[in-house]
Amino acid sequence: MQQAKKFDDLRAVFVNGSIKKDKTGSHTQHLIDKAAGIMEHEGVTVDHIYALDYPIAFGMVKNGAENGQPDDAWPMLQKRILDADILVLATPIWLGAISSVTSLVIERLYAYSGDRNEKGQYVYYGRVGGCMITGNEDGMKHCARDILFCLQHIGYMIPPQADCGWVGEAGPGQSYGDLIEGTDKRTGFDNDFTNRNVTFMAWNLMYAARMLKDAGGWPAVGNTVDGWEHVANAKDPNPEYR
Amino acid sequence: MQQAKKFDDLRAVFVNGSIKKDKTGSHTQHLIDKAAGIMEHEGVTVDHIYALDYPIAFGMVKNGAENGQPDDAWPMLQKRILDADILVLATPIWLGAISSVTSLVIERLYAYSGDRNEKGQYVYYGRVGGCMITGNEDGMKHCARDILFCLQHIGYMIPPQADCGWVGEAGPGQSYGDLIEGTDKRTGFDNDFTNRNVTFMAWNLMYAARMLKDAGGWPAVGNTVDGWEHVANAKDPNPEYR
Amino acid sequence: MQQAKKFDDLRAVFVNGSIKKDKTGSHTQHLIDKAAGIMEHEGVTVDHIYALDYPIAFGMVKNGAENGQPDDAWPMLQKRILDADILVLATPIWLGAISSVTSLVIERLYAYSGDRNEKGQYVYYGRVGGCMITGNEDGMKHCARDILFCLQHIGYMIPPQADCGWVGEAGPGQSYGDLIEGTDKRTGFDNDFTNRNVTFMAWNLMYAARMLKDAGGWPAVGNTVDGWEHVANAKDPNPEYR
Amino acid sequence: MQQAKKFDDLRAVFVNGSIKKDKTGSHTQHLIDKAAGIMEHEGVTVDHIYALDYPIAFGMVKNGAENGQPDDAWPMLQKRILDADILVLATPIWLGAISSVTSLVIERLYAYSGDRNEKGQYVYYGRVGGCMITGNEDGMKHCARDILFCLQHIGYMIPPQADCGWVGEAGPGQSYGDLIEGTDKRTGFDNDFTNRNVTFMAWNLMYAARMLKDAGGWPAVGNTVDGWEHVANAKDPNPEYR
Repeated sequence: MQQAKKFDDLRAVFVNGSIKKDKTGSHTQHLIDKAAGIMEHEGVTVDHIYALDYPIAFGMVKNGAENGQPDDAWPMLQKRILDADILVLATPIWLGAISSVTSLVIERLYAYSGDRNEKGQYVYYGRVGGCMITGNEDGMKHCARDILFCLQHIGYMIPPQADCGWVGEAGPGQSYGDLIEGTDKRTGFDNDFTNRNVTFMAWNLMYAARMLKDAGGWPAVGNTVDGWEHVANAKDPNPEYR
Repeated sequence: MQQAKKFDDLRAVFVNGSIKKDKTGSHTQHLIDKAAGIMEHEGVTVDHIYALDYPIAFGMVKNGAENGQPDDAWPMLQKRILDADILVLATPIWLGAISSVTSLVIERLYAYSGDRNEKGQYVYYGRVGGCMITGNEDGMKHCARDILFCLQHIGYMIPPQADCGWVGEAGPGQSYGDLIEGTDKRTGFDNDFTNRNVTFMAWNLMYAARMLKDAGGWPAVGNTVDGWEHVANAKDPNPEYR
Repeated sequence: MQQAKKFDDLRAVFVNGSIKKDKTGSHTQHLIDKAAGIMEHEGVTVDHIYALDYPIAFGMVKNGAENGQPDDAWPMLQKRILDADILVLATPIWLGAISSVTSLVIERLYAYSGDRNEKGQYVYYGRVGGCMITGNEDGMKHCARDILFCLQHIGYMIPPQADCGWVGEAGPGQSYGDLIEGTDKRTGFDNDFTNRNVTFMAWNLMYAARMLKDAGGWPAVGNTVDGWEHVANAKDPNPEYR
Repeated sequence: MQQAKKFDDLRAVFVNGSIKKDKTGSHTQHLIDKAAGIMEHEGVTVDHIYALDYPIAFGMVKNGAENGQPDDAWPMLQKRILDADILVLATPIWLGAISSVTSLVIERLYAYSGDRNEKGQYVYYGRVGGCMITGNEDGMKHCARDILFCLQHIGYMIPPQADCGWVGEAGPGQSYGDLIEGTDKRTGFDNDFTNRNVTFMAWNLMYAARMLKDAGGWPAVGNTVDGWEHVANAKDPNPEYR
């Protein structure tokens, strides 16, 4: 496909917030792999972070050493995240909510959110974000609310339809990617609703990242920490405006 | 300012989801007016919808007549919303959540979300969205989670830092824009945190809308209802991908 | 069953927040009917409010007339709600969230939340609440979070496992109670997860209401608007406490 | 006060989900101490768990050893939690949400939620729960939604008004319990809204625990894993019910 080459200078990073220490058991990873496969085919370089593979410190700190946890991989992971144009946070659902590991990842991203880029904007500006959710319980949209809000709040742009996932019918049952007994098929792999939304998300993230890269990042008037006060109507109250 | 002219072909619509029938009592409108004032100075044409000024039918329907409510202004409001490049939903907080009126507005937007544009994409593609929240109670980020999720889920793009608002300290007290007794000052108007975030949102929405307008909307491979299946890896399960 | 008679002095009210004007089309009502059937068999008197059968005013007001909407059924509905020991709010899911009608119902309950009972407690004290959710989309637990938080915040007690509902697999499909083609069976009626949770909720609400009724409501030291300051350690800061 | 003695056979446990390794810096602890002070004065035995003082494994497991994390204090903490009649989860707000540590605590509670008590009910039945929130950012009610939903979903009873907390005005500023410069006063300690809600929560938790203890736990018909099917109308669909 002709479009593929247009994306070969882009980098994406997927962070898997599974709470399983052994990543081979992660259902979420199956879903990540689908989106990554779409992006890689179009030329995007994909990095994968399975968060529990690393020691990650708690705390609103840049380096765990500041919070009594010297063995902290986050500064290295932060570098990989900032190297990417696209960030996708993927989470399992537990009690209807994002995992503790995903919550920890968001906190550590937040700890760097006061940093600035060379334009004086917050550091995540110029990047785009999305989310992927898996559960054998309900909660996909709740998790997407949480993740996408946080990403845009710290400076990521969210393209259209940047949430996707799979959940089964209410109640116990198989999880995404589980082998269906007596077959070589896997639960959810033929769910067109899921496949469609994963595809939409993957392409929309690529388009958005393309747009920002071509534009040299995000314009920097009206949205810098030091400069916002100088645009018109930023501070005066306009009580009689209407 | 030189930038102003760059935005004079853009249209924005602000929808105020206040539950007060009389809009002159709306604190949320004070905050809307600040963002609108910033955009108008840069040349954007701004439309205001005070939702409770209109009869809006309940129901997952395009026209209330389908749901036994023939007196429904939504089809006309929908047209005004689709005429705009930028949509900002503004809500007061009640019990920590978006207002019933804002919830109704979102439902009616959702009822049209299966429509498509001329590229075969969902109809809201090519537009950008943000949110504004006021309360004399806690709940700003919860409301932003709800609104921004919904907007992106139906096809709006969310630029960086597209949420803003004002809430007071926990407990009873004045609301945004209330006159401070014995002065001609208004509560919250000098809150730099609020002013900054309103300014960031206004400019980021303008930039995002500019970008989409210049690009002729959003590219249409991988994200159309009929075409998504044909991009690489959209449907095949890739069980051996990694 | 012997237990049945123990509940025959209790009253329950179910409020259906469907957005369909015609209640015969409400999937949520099917679920309500299941819980109501359980309670009625045990002797509980059940009242049903299908909210859209009534004109309900917007606004943080006790009577819509205060907000320019004189045709307001809420004062009459409020009386029916206060007459009941048990309140169950039932909602469909739209975009992962509670319906606008349920949001409106919560706002109007909230508008009375400053009222007090004869003990000086907030008026809803001494009552118990639960929630029921239906959707052919994901969002059950998100909706339960919203409803149960609001109910307890205004004074309802929430017994164990007071949330229940039904959602289908992610993606389009049948809704709860839809006839399954070629059969006389209805979607979800044989879902044991749903049936179990409805049963748990119904019985736990009855037990909690029984307990409060037998106790003459809720004790009134430490939780009255005028009296809380007088219990030990209510106001003094205890900086050296630990 | 006469009431005090009524509670001296009760036990409460407060779990502080702060992300600060050093608990002396925890603002949340100041708020916990207020509620604990109220309960202790009435005779309740109070246990404190500062979660980050312990190694707590990730995973939907009872013992971290099952998930490759042998150094797991949770089994011991779980015992302390089950020894208590009252559980209060306290969390700071980060990006409007509960902390990762609180999320981890909830996951580990959830991992035991399939256990049963001697009546055949889920193991947390017969206990009561509440929450406390601190932040110098908005998000109190959002966090309360999350925590209280989870507690009731696994079997805790939630008494009226079981949420409380403190947040400052939107924007940067002091946190709860910070010394106010040039004084010996601490931020938030004189906030009557906070003090009132803490007091209400503390007393309502004590009353609810009292009620359950006196009743010998929660009645066990209609809400046991093995028995629910046998109550009337639990499984049959009642299509003609109304």
